[in-house]
Amino acid sequence: MRFFSDNAARVHPSVFAAMAAADSLDTAYDGDRWSRSLDARLGELFEREVRVLWVPTGTAANCLALAALCPPYGGVICHRDAHIQNDEGGAPEFYTHGAKLMLADGPGAKLDPAGVAKVADAIADDVHRVQPHAVSITNATEYGRVYTPAEVAAIGELCRARGWRFHMDGARFANAMATTGAAPAEMTWRAGVDALSFGFVKNGGMSAEALVFFDPDLAAATLRRRKRAGLLLSKGRYLAAQILAMLEDDLWLANGRAANAAATTLAEAAGDRLIHPVEANELFLRATPDEAARLRAQGFDFYDWATGEVRFVTAWDSASEDIDRFAAAIRQL
Amino acid sequence: MRFFSDNAARVHPSVFAAMAAADSLDTAYDGDRWSRSLDARLGELFEREVRVLWVPTGTAANCLALAALCPPYGGVICHRDAHIQNDEGGAPEFYTHGAKLMLADGPGAKLDPAGVAKVADAIADDVHRVQPHAVSITNATEYGRVYTPAEVAAIGELCRARGWRFHMDGARFANAMATTGAAPAEMTWRAGVDALSFGFVKNGGMSAEALVFFDPDLAAATLRRRKRAGLLLSKGRYLAAQILAMLEDDLWLANGRAANAAATTLAEAAGDRLIHPVEANELFLRATPDEAARLRAQGFDFYDWATGEVRFVTAWDSASEDIDRFAAAIRQL
Amino acid sequence: MRFFSDNAARVHPSVFAAMAAADSLDTAYDGDRWSRSLDARLGELFEREVRVLWVPTGTAANCLALAALCPPYGGVICHRDAHIQNDEGGAPEFYTHGAKLMLADGPGAKLDPAGVAKVADAIADDVHRVQPHAVSITNATEYGRVYTPAEVAAIGELCRARGWRFHMDGARFANAMATTGAAPAEMTWRAGVDALSFGFVKNGGMSAEALVFFDPDLAAATLRRRKRAGLLLSKGRYLAAQILAMLEDDLWLANGRAANAAATTLAEAAGDRLIHPVEANELFLRATPDEAARLRAQGFDFYDWATGEVRFVTAWDSASEDIDRFAAAIRQL
Amino acid sequence: MRFFSDNAARVHPSVFAAMAAADSLDTAYDGDRWSRSLDARLGELFEREVRVLWVPTGTAANCLALAALCPPYGGVICHRDAHIQNDEGGAPEFYTHGAKLMLADGPGAKLDPAGVAKVADAIADDVHRVQPHAVSITNATEYGRVYTPAEVAAIGELCRARGWRFHMDGARFANAMATTGAAPAEMTWRAGVDALSFGFVKNGGMSAEALVFFDPDLAAATLRRRKRAGLLLSKGRYLAAQILAMLEDDLWLANGRAANAAATTLAEAAGDRLIHPVEANELFLRATPDEAARLRAQGFDFYDWATGEVRFVTAWDSASEDIDRFAAAIRQL
Repeated sequence: MRFFSDNAARVHPSVFAAMAAADSLDTAYDGDRWSRSLDARLGELFEREVRVLWVPTGTAANCLALAALCPPYGGVICHRDAHIQNDEGGAPEFYTHGAKLMLADGPGAKLDPAGVAKVADAIADDVHRVQPHAVSITNATEYGRVYTPAEVAAIGELCRARGWRFHMDGARFANAMATTGAAPAEMTWRAGVDALSFGFVKNGGMSAEALVFFDPDLAAATLRRRKRAGLLLSKGRYLAAQILAMLEDDLWLANGRAANAAATTLAEAAGDRLIHPVEANELFLRATPDEAARLRAQGFDFYDWATGEVRFVTAWDSASEDIDRFAAAIRQL
Repeated sequence: MRFFSDNAARVHPSVFAAMAAADSLDTAYDGDRWSRSLDARLGELFEREVRVLWVPTGTAANCLALAALCPPYGGVICHRDAHIQNDEGGAPEFYTHGAKLMLADGPGAKLDPAGVAKVADAIADDVHRVQPHAVSITNATEYGRVYTPAEVAAIGELCRARGWRFHMDGARFANAMATTGAAPAEMTWRAGVDALSFGFVKNGGMSAEALVFFDPDLAAATLRRRKRAGLLLSKGRYLAAQILAMLEDDLWLANGRAANAAATTLAEAAGDRLIHPVEANELFLRATPDEAARLRAQGFDFYDWATGEVRFVTAWDSASEDIDRFAAAIRQL
Repeated sequence: MRFFSDNAARVHPSVFAAMAAADSLDTAYDGDRWSRSLDARLGELFEREVRVLWVPTGTAANCLALAALCPPYGGVICHRDAHIQNDEGGAPEFYTHGAKLMLADGPGAKLDPAGVAKVADAIADDVHRVQPHAVSITNATEYGRVYTPAEVAAIGELCRARGWRFHMDGARFANAMATTGAAPAEMTWRAGVDALSFGFVKNGGMSAEALVFFDPDLAAATLRRRKRAGLLLSKGRYLAAQILAMLEDDLWLANGRAANAAATTLAEAAGDRLIHPVEANELFLRATPDEAARLRAQGFDFYDWATGEVRFVTAWDSASEDIDRFAAAIRQL
Repeated sequence: MRFFSDNAARVHPSVFAAMAAADSLDTAYDGDRWSRSLDARLGELFEREVRVLWVPTGTAANCLALAALCPPYGGVICHRDAHIQNDEGGAPEFYTHGAKLMLADGPGAKLDPAGVAKVADAIADDVHRVQPHAVSITNATEYGRVYTPAEVAAIGELCRARGWRFHMDGARFANAMATTGAAPAEMTWRAGVDALSFGFVKNGGMSAEALVFFDPDLAAATLRRRKRAGLLLSKGRYLAAQILAMLEDDLWLANGRAANAAATTLAEAAGDRLIHPVEANELFLRATPDEAARLRAQGFDFYDWATGEVRFVTAWDSASEDIDRFAAAIRQL
């Protein structure tokens, strides 16, 4: 019973079916009819004109976005615990040609305008200091916290006031949306977001994430950067088909809800062991090495996060009987 | 009836089946059992220890290889018509952090030691000139020509003599191998090749190419570069499974043979219209715009290569009745 | 008697004197009164608002300009024999983060609109091909040829029509201006040039070149790139003072004239040995190894350019008696 | 009376004289006799074989060193207040092609092995995390603290144990050496330092710093990187001459002593206003805005460091009467 990452979840049957259905002759790269329909399809979802690029990983989506939003000699303010800072092997620096990540603080890997401003205000505006050009937040965060549209908008306002761009890493966007029940537009461009990494792989997809630009002008150079990064798969239709399948009948949202519900069940079992409020599909718990060992002995697989801390991640395909057994095991600790 | 690129071919049923079979729980990234078996599986094929990384595109494979073989301040000698020079959107420069491609000449996009040496010998060995550090060849070439193992070895010998590294872009390696009947080892490391981009996507795969290092030491940094480029898919098992399926019972070779056979049939029909000998699965023909239009009117789809020149590409899935009809249509021009 | 390069010439006494005069207390970097006066001083010379950055080398000036004019995923069309292509150790690729130099042909390292267009027109406008974003020419050229303002303007017009930027490498701008007698404005921004590397080091300076932007908006990011490249000397006043001294009473032009006059004298002696017309301060001659040896035996120092070809370069400080002796020696070959 | 930075100090007369003496004909770049003598001259000082490159700025020296010691996908551990992190406009990221600075803590911008290890030990050794490859310290530090040879050696030992390289930013190396009285060898390579940025510009030079490699193998690629960064001045002899003049009769050390002595005088006057011990030529004091204004009204020029904090920097040319007047003024606050 696997709770170590939604990254390792299975592929949803609808996604597989859509890939099989795309197995016909069409143009290569992103000229096929599946790929060409993405702008319109996501435009509906977001209630405005958008430009959408499929890419095979969330790291690629994030870092193409950062390269579009920040020049090589600039900086991106993000949380100290952000995925782009800690888990992408230096990809932000590679894609931006050396821009600097500027680390802000906040509980549960969440930023707020004050925390962002504090980082920026400490930087003298001269040529010796790298200047911030963008902010990047993760929703849901690396600790399973969720920004509301209002919280996003507050940061978006700061960005506008300072002339910065604004990126949202939505590797778990579905989980955040399931929690808030917000309209996609409210959570993104109406809150000032310029680019969204809209994740599907953790949520039932196989190998396709959508990089969504709310400012179409930002997309043109990114089409070239995507090719230049070796990310333009020749059989792109199989990626576009995955995204379309995830959007069909809001499968993405249903999957997000399922993962969140599983997490809620476990959270109730965990009680005051919880280190962060559980708002999406990740749980961080206090557990002694001995307690962790006992859970593992019962067949539950998860990460040790730090000394005395463990992380559980649920996914769209977490079986309800596994969840129940796991909840029971947690209660018995 | 599509002859514009093998890039747009379908996915082989065995590849699809292997992906479905991989749809179970396992570790993320490249820690799963499919990914972990690649070194051994390709080691058998190449009759030596190798290190293998799956990547989603040939551009990624080529450019990760170049980054491993050439420093940012160095150069890579390749043919003027090489894919890395003309069709990768500047990816070699991105991955190598600005290394220079140094363009050599030769018929049919083939290099030979004299052509390579001519480029190198014109470069004074001082700090003002970028120095060559590697050679990259494409087999089969961009014009459908094939290097024999002896021809590769002649270039490999030059590389060794000059202290350069040697890369082979094998986007159509299967086609070259089908033509020559050589052992994989003879065509690669025994001929001095340090790294091979072993292509599957044009040949029945969906989204997985293998980057094969014959010098294991070269692979360690490349594991980091792959992650840093956003190429480390979290559900890597679906890529590894594709490669394993293509290797099973030498499917890759059978598919290469099928595409080559189709090309041979068309070549016989084309006769003295051919601009290059047809040794793999690409044909370049002289055809007036009017002739091209007549073929298109009959439902044949292909590229105009240059004024008065067209390109046809066959694939593993070229239907024999299509080939026959196409051959007949070409004859009737 | 040194004719191998104007690079190795001495520093003009006025330049030394200006550096000594700058040896007082003032602000660091480029905040001092000498540095702050450059925009106005060069604005007068060019008859318009300009932004000027001192830098210590011509390579730095050229490559900062290219980085301002071309994105990492773009290309710069230049002559196959351009300094940026052959003599800057890959600096253009470093500063632009991997932009591609696209090589055009033309006699004497001179480009014309047809030669430039030929390169560009061969590049399909798709995402697989790097697209040209700028043109760079060298005036005087690497073979001592000079563009007239009309010739520059013809290329400038092509740039405007295609939406490209336009750079002039003026390492020997003084020599070109001395030859043509043109107004600086005519040779540059009125002819469509966006950025000029205005060289002083070969012409009496020690360690200061001026990068001149005719579009002030281009300068802002370059101020940051200059710092980021480690080129912002803390005692910048000594560089600014050099440039101001070179501009005083048009010393730069007088020095250019002196070097050109010396070259003309040698050119008359060389007669039909000349490979290129002598329009600035460089001469390329046919000379057998034996003839070259005979000149060297008389104390004349110069480069062997190619088999049977030698290069002589005069400078602002070429002594007239040396020139006369060298002319005589050439005649006696 | 200027105390805002040693960066703005004058050029020592001996340095000027040496530049004038170098104003004769010689080879360009670094082929002249002054440049060619640097390895031997600094080899004597450091009592071992070294490779030395002149560069025009400390930023260039630091960042060429980092590029030699750390791959693009790696990280460099440095202090949170290090010059490379805060005052080089992103140059480390530019030169290293995007390596990450990893920020450690310690009083007075000094690192110790425990602080360095703490940063490193928090980084899991997997492909998702950038791994440390080098440590960089500044001696004297950005807060005017000095490392003893033993303190350097302790960090050097950690580096060796972990397989990391070790860089010392010696922009104020002379001040540190004047304080400790250590042998240059003890402070550097015997303590495990691989590369030293040996600063002269703050200490009487004009535009030349020495990048010293104690491992000669590291220098070869750096010669190419220096050119590639536009840092290879064609009239390099004027830079080499500056360095040779500073080394003559240990002028560098005498100048360092003079600046330190001036700082000591001021420190005695400052008493318990001092925020950091004064060990070199920088003082950080508590002073209210009103107090700062009163000092400025008397003609003393300095930086406001933070609210209620000011910084004074002495230099080799701080006039003793200025120092006495300044000390008196500080006492009278």
